[in-house]
Amino acid sequence: MWPFNHLPRAELKRKYGFEPSDSWLAHLRRSSLRVGGGCSGSFVSSSGLTLTNHHCAQECLSRLSTPQHDYTQKLFYAKTAAEERVCPGYEILQLSEISDVTARLQKATHGLAGEAFHTAMRAESARIEKECAQAVGIKCDVVSLYHGGLYELYQYHRYEDVRLVFAPEAEIAFFGGDPDNFNFPRYDLDLTFLRAYEQGRPVQTSDYLSFAHVGLKANDITFVSGNPGSTSRLLTIAQFEYLRDHQLFEALLGLARYRGFLTEYGKRDPEAKRVSSSELFWVENVFKAIRGEQQALSDKAFFEGLRARERDLRSRVAADPVLKSKYGGAWAAIEKAQARQAELAKEYSWIEGSDSRPSRVISPFLVWARQLVRAAEERPKKNEDRLEEYADAQLPSLEQRLFAQGPIKIQFEIAKLAYDLGVLREDLGVDHPFVEKVLGKSSPLELATALIKGSSLQSVAGRKRLFAGGKAAIAASKDRMIQLALAIEPDARAIRARVEEEIEPVITKNAELIAHARFDVYGMNSYPDATGSPRLSFGTVRGWRENGKLNSAFTKLGGAFERATGRDPFALPRTWTEKEERLDKETPFNFVTDNDITGGNSGSPVVNREGEFVGLVFDGNIHSLGGAFGFDMAQNRMVAVDARAIVQALDKVYGADRIALELTGSAELAAPSTKP
Amino acid sequence: MWPFNHLPRAELKRKYGFEPSDSWLAHLRRSSLRVGGGCSGSFVSSSGLTLTNHHCAQECLSRLSTPQHDYTQKLFYAKTAAEERVCPGYEILQLSEISDVTARLQKATHGLAGEAFHTAMRAESARIEKECAQAVGIKCDVVSLYHGGLYELYQYHRYEDVRLVFAPEAEIAFFGGDPDNFNFPRYDLDLTFLRAYEQGRPVQTSDYLSFAHVGLKANDITFVSGNPGSTSRLLTIAQFEYLRDHQLFEALLGLARYRGFLTEYGKRDPEAKRVSSSELFWVENVFKAIRGEQQALSDKAFFEGLRARERDLRSRVAADPVLKSKYGGAWAAIEKAQARQAELAKEYSWIEGSDSRPSRVISPFLVWARQLVRAAEERPKKNEDRLEEYADAQLPSLEQRLFAQGPIKIQFEIAKLAYDLGVLREDLGVDHPFVEKVLGKSSPLELATALIKGSSLQSVAGRKRLFAGGKAAIAASKDRMIQLALAIEPDARAIRARVEEEIEPVITKNAELIAHARFDVYGMNSYPDATGSPRLSFGTVRGWRENGKLNSAFTKLGGAFERATGRDPFALPRTWTEKEERLDKETPFNFVTDNDITGGNSGSPVVNREGEFVGLVFDGNIHSLGGAFGFDMAQNRMVAVDARAIVQALDKVYGADRIALELTGSAELAAPSTKP
Repeated sequence: MWPFNHLPRAELKRKYGFEPSDSWLAHLRRSSLRVGGGCSGSFVSSSGLTLTNHHCAQECLSRLSTPQHDYTQKLFYAKTAAEERVCPGYEILQLSEISDVTARLQKATHGLAGEAFHTAMRAESARIEKECAQAVGIKCDVVSLYHGGLYELYQYHRYEDVRLVFAPEAEIAFFGGDPDNFNFPRYDLDLTFLRAYEQGRPVQTSDYLSFAHVGLKANDITFVSGNPGSTSRLLTIAQFEYLRDHQLFEALLGLARYRGFLTEYGKRDPEAKRVSSSELFWVENVFKAIRGEQQALSDKAFFEGLRARERDLRSRVAADPVLKSKYGGAWAAIEKAQARQAELAKEYSWIEGSDSRPSRVISPFLVWARQLVRAAEERPKKNEDRLEEYADAQLPSLEQRLFAQGPIKIQFEIAKLAYDLGVLREDLGVDHPFVEKVLGKSSPLELATALIKGSSLQSVAGRKRLFAGGKAAIAASKDRMIQLALAIEPDARAIRARVEEEIEPVITKNAELIAHARFDVYGMNSYPDATGSPRLSFGTVRGWRENGKLNSAFTKLGGAFERATGRDPFALPRTWTEKEERLDKETPFNFVTDNDITGGNSGSPVVNREGEFVGLVFDGNIHSLGGAFGFDMAQNRMVAVDARAIVQALDKVYGADRIALELTGSAELAAPSTKP
Repeated sequence: MWPFNHLPRAELKRKYGFEPSDSWLAHLRRSSLRVGGGCSGSFVSSSGLTLTNHHCAQECLSRLSTPQHDYTQKLFYAKTAAEERVCPGYEILQLSEISDVTARLQKATHGLAGEAFHTAMRAESARIEKECAQAVGIKCDVVSLYHGGLYELYQYHRYEDVRLVFAPEAEIAFFGGDPDNFNFPRYDLDLTFLRAYEQGRPVQTSDYLSFAHVGLKANDITFVSGNPGSTSRLLTIAQFEYLRDHQLFEALLGLARYRGFLTEYGKRDPEAKRVSSSELFWVENVFKAIRGEQQALSDKAFFEGLRARERDLRSRVAADPVLKSKYGGAWAAIEKAQARQAELAKEYSWIEGSDSRPSRVISPFLVWARQLVRAAEERPKKNEDRLEEYADAQLPSLEQRLFAQGPIKIQFEIAKLAYDLGVLREDLGVDHPFVEKVLGKSSPLELATALIKGSSLQSVAGRKRLFAGGKAAIAASKDRMIQLALAIEPDARAIRARVEEEIEPVITKNAELIAHARFDVYGMNSYPDATGSPRLSFGTVRGWRENGKLNSAFTKLGGAFERATGRDPFALPRTWTEKEERLDKETPFNFVTDNDITGGNSGSPVVNREGEFVGLVFDGNIHSLGGAFGFDMAQNRMVAVDARAIVQALDKVYGADRIALELTGSAELAAPSTKP
């Protein structure tokens, strides 16, 4: 997961016998995209055709769906350009520049601690991002690498007109469903084609990846470009223990219960199933991912390895008086802040946090209301004084999400919020002042119904009105959800202030110290933790050994037919069963490599030495989940759709010649020419 | 939690200034009962009137309920003796004798290890129990105390005709619901009156507890008699770690998900809510209890205390050559067996185990089928060669459960089993041979429907036929559930045999060694872990300090009206709101004491120095959950219904004079005479 500008070229050449040229790197970097918030993708034609995963386009598919046409489950294929449909609220980002801003930030925070440190860091970041994002269509992020060892400014080109071109049936995109998720062998066509538009026309670009004429085979070198979201390999033991004993554990309990709720909710009737299925999909996916992480940290030998690494660094620091005086206190400081975080975590997650609240429910109504209330308060302030997510550089993305069109699933949202409020009451306790403030004498279902039914937030126009109206409009609003958000805002700001004063700056500052200690002791011998910024990973096509048995690196199209039972989640779509005879069953379908990836790499292109597209990342094996805390090349594997299967499916199953031709010039060209 | 025959009288006298006489003890012991499997209770009149908790009678209430009369939620009051209704499958046990059988068992297992040890122990226990249980109406259990430090034979009188007399509305029995569960202050009337019959007539006995004429007040001494189910205070650190990192953790994940499923299942329609509510009740209760246990073990200071205790004993053993040679290897042996258990646990829980399977679902159909298949195989064998639960001494209870009448909730059972099979497939994996054997190409819902719909096990007659028909009937059965149970029986026996060879005997034998090491080093200075056998606990009425604030020991009837919101679970039943004016709101409602109790003590009588009934145990505070691993007298509290509230409610709310008179001679007598 090397940043594109910090590749250890000599080492990579020694290891893989390949040294990418500057132009090879720049082309791959510019062809790689960040898609729909947390995913990756790439341009695969000169007309802005974008390939990503089916599961990365869930939100788009869900927003375009109606009770009559459920595109989260069924095929979508725009036979002509005119049929391509706008994905509401979607953006695509393309990295254009990286520059080092470490010195600027260090200067701004020099000698500061606590809240002052945090405020200075935030203000200077906001200033840098705002200076960078002067033109329309540019997004800028200050990225912290090595936990503050380096700060860099990433500038992106932003496409905000993204359209849906092709999505296969969920049955084949996610064949094997949750039981097969994070497992291999796999037989999934987990893809969606989108297209980036500007000024109402498809983007024209030379920065795209050609589909390879020669397919991959075992032991080939592979490159994966994408946006790995988050790893935590450089944390301290105190932080790992907190994750293992509290954070991951609580997350799993919350997800397990929410999952039970969602599974059964979907059985109310077909409409309930339709509106809840993408939420269930995510919950099952996240549950399995976190469970894998938790299991890795619960493995005594693995954890002992983490301990040994920290011991080594700390003993080297302790043995050198200069290092000791600079860095020696950092670990204890983090441990103390971590203990404080443990005390505040539960209240913080309910009162200020949203995606980590123990119910795991995110109510769009509550999110909108809170964003509107905060935006009204923050926008009149000077840019550098605002809460960071309301800084000028962040506002375009915020507005796009806030004003995204899409059907509102009122009944489902009420059920979710009622569930959420029930968990709140249980978790903080009936007599907690925040619970009394929120619930009063209402039952969770009564309150959820009152907050959502007839809310003015249902319509984009209603949200725009409140956004435009600012503080006066918010104060005058009769909307009960807005009133609730207003009522809890002082509590939310109070607990956030405590965290931003007592915890975050202590951890940020001392993690910086540890990062520098690591540079001083070992040099820059490893890549930084993933932070959602673009990275390049090197690897090789190969299976792995498990219980004494070697798993092959490839599956074939024919395997899907053998595994099929005709029952969900092992039912193939009719398009496939009807075309079974036309398919070359020897065609490679999915494959694994030892590239180091993590969540956020979904949709990443796999390319060969020639920089050509050979596969589409969509998953990792179960061992790869431990990669959050340490990469094990013997066991961790990335899972991808083979480019040859993509072309076969488009051509033989779906008759989607328009896309196949756009990818390959001719469908024939990319037929399997090398058997793995 | 002292066994009645091992009271440390001198120490108790020093501490409480009270020494119970032999007759005081014998009277309390004989008045105390084991009710409905896992609960406690007591005779409270000379006519076999039995007082236990509402939640201990759930299964009875559920079996007597119909869509028209849901007694799990609504009032049941037999105005005359003729209206008292038989609780199907219920038994009441009354301890009659205890004798020491340690020498017999030690002789039988002398010099043995592994499976031979296990077999000898089982055979000798079966022999002892069979010799003891010669007459009808007698049940005998060999009880292991101090993890094998002592073995004793407990002989019970068994009442198998138990009838329902009175049960209040769930709204007041469980006022505050899950949010208030394991919390205090509380306002619950968690009681049910049953009656033991013999030869169709109420039992006549002098072994009953009179209701006290003078109520309890703060600092009064209290005695609790009952059947604490299980504590784990004398385990080794390896066992505590296994509990904390695996067993409790997995249980919580399973329960959380099942809970989400059940909550939402109950929203399908009123009938779905009715049939699933008692299951949800138990799941929420168990979830909260296990969560408390898990939190106790995750508390670093608490765990360090357990470690220190083990270190002390081990270092004393290591320092003495004689002790070292006798006991020194026991801890490592248990650790090794524990590691093996960790490897087998998941498969064992699915293939052989039932109540710990990760779904937490217990399908009565599957249980019946497996019991019938096993009974057919085991009953022809000699008593001492059978699986222990099919020994002669256990058969009457088994038959009573197997042939219990009661409505079968077909749709709910299908939904539960489908859920169970889905979790099975996910947990062991699609490709596990056991999963393939069970599911084949069916979906979980298809299979669950096929197994349950039209099953001959639905009727008692059908089950009796298969039981009576033995192996031939089982082999000839066309019932798909029986066929499934037959198909998986070899797998189940195989994995059970591994556990009974490699794990259980190692742990039993080495835990015995550690128990003896403890006797040798410290003497018998503490009571044995709870094992479901009758115990007596000493304590005092007192509140506790939390966050600097002292919680009072009593709540009052008036508090329930203040806390009520009119919404579930804080809605009072109409009987109460209509009679509000007639109640003396100063009457003590619930109270706490520092008696050491645990699950299984539910329904226990609280008695005063005079041996009179002053309260009914129904819960503990949240801290008491850590009592599974160690008792903290400063924080752990038992929660009980005050006897005065019981009489007030019977008299003023329900007009149940018949019961009030039976309890007190006159309702006036037990009116509150002392304010706390």
